[in-house]
Amino acid sequence: MGEWAFYNDDFVLESNCAVPASDLAVQRGYGVFDFFKTVLNKPLFFDAHLLRFRRSAEAMRLPVNKTREELKAIIHQLIYKNELPDSGIRLTLTGGVSPDGFTLGKPNLIITQQPLAPASPALESGIRLITYEHQRQLPQVKTIDYLMAIWLQPRLATACADDILFYTSNHGITECPRANFFLVAADGTLVTPGEHILEGITRSRILRLTGENVVEGSIALSELKTAREAFITSTTKQVLPVIAIDNQPIGNGKQGPITQRLAEKLRKEIR
Amino acid sequence: MGEWAFYNDDFVLESNCAVPASDLAVQRGYGVFDFFKTVLNKPLFFDAHLLRFRRSAEAMRLPVNKTREELKAIIHQLIYKNELPDSGIRLTLTGGVSPDGFTLGKPNLIITQQPLAPASPALESGIRLITYEHQRQLPQVKTIDYLMAIWLQPRLATACADDILFYTSNHGITECPRANFFLVAADGTLVTPGEHILEGITRSRILRLTGENVVEGSIALSELKTAREAFITSTTKQVLPVIAIDNQPIGNGKQGPITQRLAEKLRKEIR
Repeated sequence: MGEWAFYNDDFVLESNCAVPASDLAVQRGYGVFDFFKTVLNKPLFFDAHLLRFRRSAEAMRLPVNKTREELKAIIHQLIYKNELPDSGIRLTLTGGVSPDGFTLGKPNLIITQQPLAPASPALESGIRLITYEHQRQLPQVKTIDYLMAIWLQPRLATACADDILFYTSNHGITECPRANFFLVAADGTLVTPGEHILEGITRSRILRLTGENVVEGSIALSELKTAREAFITSTTKQVLPVIAIDNQPIGNGKQGPITQRLAEKLRKEIR
Repeated sequence: MGEWAFYNDDFVLESNCAVPASDLAVQRGYGVFDFFKTVLNKPLFFDAHLLRFRRSAEAMRLPVNKTREELKAIIHQLIYKNELPDSGIRLTLTGGVSPDGFTLGKPNLIITQQPLAPASPALESGIRLITYEHQRQLPQVKTIDYLMAIWLQPRLATACADDILFYTSNHGITECPRANFFLVAADGTLVTPGEHILEGITRSRILRLTGENVVEGSIALSELKTAREAFITSTTKQVLPVIAIDNQPIGNGKQGPITQRLAEKLRKEIR
């Protein structure tokens, strides 16, 4: 029968959950979302995700119309109804039905829960990235805009790569479409881009776990050649070692010790 | 009872026309569209719009799954059912329901028809633009991505302006979010940006109407100061004079003779 979802004020079957074709999400790609995991029915970093969702909505001038406590109660009910202990929960807030196809309407709120596929063991031993010059629009806001990321997918297959690493000529390396990027430089410094990115919740956990031993700063493309290690972080991927970028190995082409230690620390925190 | 629309294979009431919440348009802002007018039930520049729609879909790897003749037959039926002689018709093709929220699904096709509000007389006497540094993603493709355009709307109110004019430091002036831009330079040359833009159907009509007396080339921001005239073109706006940009008058701050002549020529062609 499929999962339950929540639409505006009601629980509905996910398979029946639909958005008016005249919603600005469909017409103009205008909306925000957030996504978090549940482990044994417990939402991970719940407050941080709900806060970021609200901030994204505010930045896009979309009223949430639910308090934090109301959202939490709805999500707990959803978890209770669906009985999917290990899952991904997504909140989406759309631009709403517009009177003229351009002016913001009353946002539609969609909350869905899906079973979460376990991370592929192949990826856990290390992934391969390709770089691409692009800057996400409003990078600090978790909008639904993944146009370039999806459009670029065929390049991954051609290049035998797993994901894309965005950079710009002005700001150097920024992020992957759905993950943050960290690098252990030649001198052993752990560094992650601090601007023109989405501040990931997993990224902020890693910053906290490493304490002062991390620099938020710019990374030039040329630094990849001499890097000792690299990894990406995201809600679904947690910490994944990067073993090659543009077909050049990072370090010795295997997961490095700093990556391994941080991945283990994060796993412990989540357990 | 509202207008009829067409969804995938069926005519439905527009008010009932909805897209699955799991469609990539809603989840990832991934889709294309096109938009044209009907005058006395006759679609304007029909073939040009249908061709551009197909090319946009191809560029985004979205199969249309209908021949040109099938699309035309559906649209003629829609016109017959709705009895809206002067209207705007929009075709939208979405990324479809994705198995994993990222890989392309089977696209959903939506065709809607709406009565078209007559152009505001206030705008016809000339509009005011403000410049903003931004490059649309995949500019040559008519995607549903209007994130920046909608996000920037409050600035228009603050600046008492009617629309935005995008530029980049590399390529100069490109286009408005929903219209192309033309300028009559200090030496009398008519020029319009030739790259990093959406090639509008009205723009191409203007290029044809002016014959060889137009240059497709780059326009630097600094050229606005000395410009004699400027105007924008679009399906809904046709030709609209631009009388000020960033609060600086263009020419004498009124519609110029070249703009007026081209607007009149286009009106004649449409009649």
